[in-house]
Amino acid sequence: MAFDYHQKVLFRHCDPAGIVFFPRYAEMVNDAVEALFSDVLGWPFEAMHPDAAVPTVAIAMEFSAPSRHGDELILSIAGRGVGRTSLTLETTARAGDEVRFRARQTLVCIGSDGKPQPWPDAVRAAAERMTEEQP
Amino acid sequence: MAFDYHQKVLFRHCDPAGIVFFPRYAEMVNDAVEALFSDVLGWPFEAMHPDAAVPTVAIAMEFSAPSRHGDELILSIAGRGVGRTSLTLETTARAGDEVRFRARQTLVCIGSDGKPQPWPDAVRAAAERMTEEQP
Amino acid sequence: MAFDYHQKVLFRHCDPAGIVFFPRYAEMVNDAVEALFSDVLGWPFEAMHPDAAVPTVAIAMEFSAPSRHGDELILSIAGRGVGRTSLTLETTARAGDEVRFRARQTLVCIGSDGKPQPWPDAVRAAAERMTEEQP
Amino acid sequence: MAFDYHQKVLFRHCDPAGIVFFPRYAEMVNDAVEALFSDVLGWPFEAMHPDAAVPTVAIAMEFSAPSRHGDELILSIAGRGVGRTSLTLETTARAGDEVRFRARQTLVCIGSDGKPQPWPDAVRAAAERMTEEQP
Repeated sequence: MAFDYHQKVLFRHCDPAGIVFFPRYAEMVNDAVEALFSDVLGWPFEAMHPDAAVPTVAIAMEFSAPSRHGDELILSIAGRGVGRTSLTLETTARAGDEVRFRARQTLVCIGSDGKPQPWPDAVRAAAERMTEEQP
Repeated sequence: MAFDYHQKVLFRHCDPAGIVFFPRYAEMVNDAVEALFSDVLGWPFEAMHPDAAVPTVAIAMEFSAPSRHGDELILSIAGRGVGRTSLTLETTARAGDEVRFRARQTLVCIGSDGKPQPWPDAVRAAAERMTEEQP
Repeated sequence: MAFDYHQKVLFRHCDPAGIVFFPRYAEMVNDAVEALFSDVLGWPFEAMHPDAAVPTVAIAMEFSAPSRHGDELILSIAGRGVGRTSLTLETTARAGDEVRFRARQTLVCIGSDGKPQPWPDAVRAAAERMTEEQP
Repeated sequence: MAFDYHQKVLFRHCDPAGIVFFPRYAEMVNDAVEALFSDVLGWPFEAMHPDAAVPTVAIAMEFSAPSRHGDELILSIAGRGVGRTSLTLETTARAGDEVRFRARQTLVCIGSDGKPQPWPDAVRAAAERMTEEQP
């Protein structure tokens, strides 16, 4: 089961063409992942910092249809793979039935020294559950 | 020859870990592409709007090393392919010799009706020149 | 009675000092005012555009205590005056009992020609109610 | 003599009305002040952190005319007062002869404990010079 994050398209997201400016989608994805860590993985960003962090090391986004001011988006995050120190997530954003964008990203768990470190056991277990549940 | 865009890492780019927050990199890439259209392709964004626009339809970014406040980045944009209505660009951001991130993106030229339309001839010619010049 | 808007302090709001970067507070205030127009004044931003807009013509903000990542803020908006074409709002942001910032701003209703125009009757009536209700 | 900071209005600054979204002006002011500290006051933000910081404790902005995509802005910063631990600056942004906005802000020098601390002597001397030079 994917984790759903709701985000209305706000004035601040939109560009002069009246559609979402793509770096704002990157911010939305980060907000959604922050909520995932807080609500599903049990490791809120504000609790892990500064002892650990989970920077995104790669992200690929495809924007299949524009989103307009006022649209009600649902960002659904699915697990796509858990490594010893990494996690791959795929976020699909829809308004109603229409896909607006997909983002596939890999995060790495690092320590305060900036080096990769293994996921805490409980986080890994929760990440594995959300990965296995995917179709 | 690639187009170089200089960007010092500013306070507003950085997150609580003291490094650039990746959606700010997405903004930097957009700024660099905006400068490319203005300085190299001869079609400034502010001149094309609202009759045309060049939305990014896909972008893949890899962050290979973190950038810190005060770092002097150079974003080098290379052409990777010109289609009838599309353009693929690759941006490599370095501080000194170290690559900080790469972004590969595809833009599409659309008209005021939101549908793809061919590049203006002069823009296409300039885009082809910058694509052919790449190693 | 003031309109309350809830906003958790997210990673994207915070600067290298680990506290909210003040331009992000300006974005939060805009989000809260957007919700006010949608939920209380009955004129969502996405419905008024492009026939009308309500740009902020002046804002004064005082930051009395820093906010940290994870803080749960409540932005309470009170009406401070309704003119023929203007509206003055005061937003007080608190975490628990502690005031984090206050913002006093004036918005003006403009038409698609960019010139001030009177508030729609229903919007004015709702704005007057929220202004009169203030202590 | 005021310190001048040049900023073209870019795509990312603009809202669906095609004009600068006011929180982006707040970012521009921060960028300009960051350049002032680097170029005039001799204390770059990246050098002072994390031992010291200069948070804005109050800012008042008036937006007298809209700025459009492509406009070439000059933000002129004048000193308005130097205290033992504080500094008041006034930024006037113009495109050609037209004033677009003014911002008056007060910054405070704080130490790593978050408490106000006196300006370094050289910074104070430079700040006093730029304040005295104002008409």
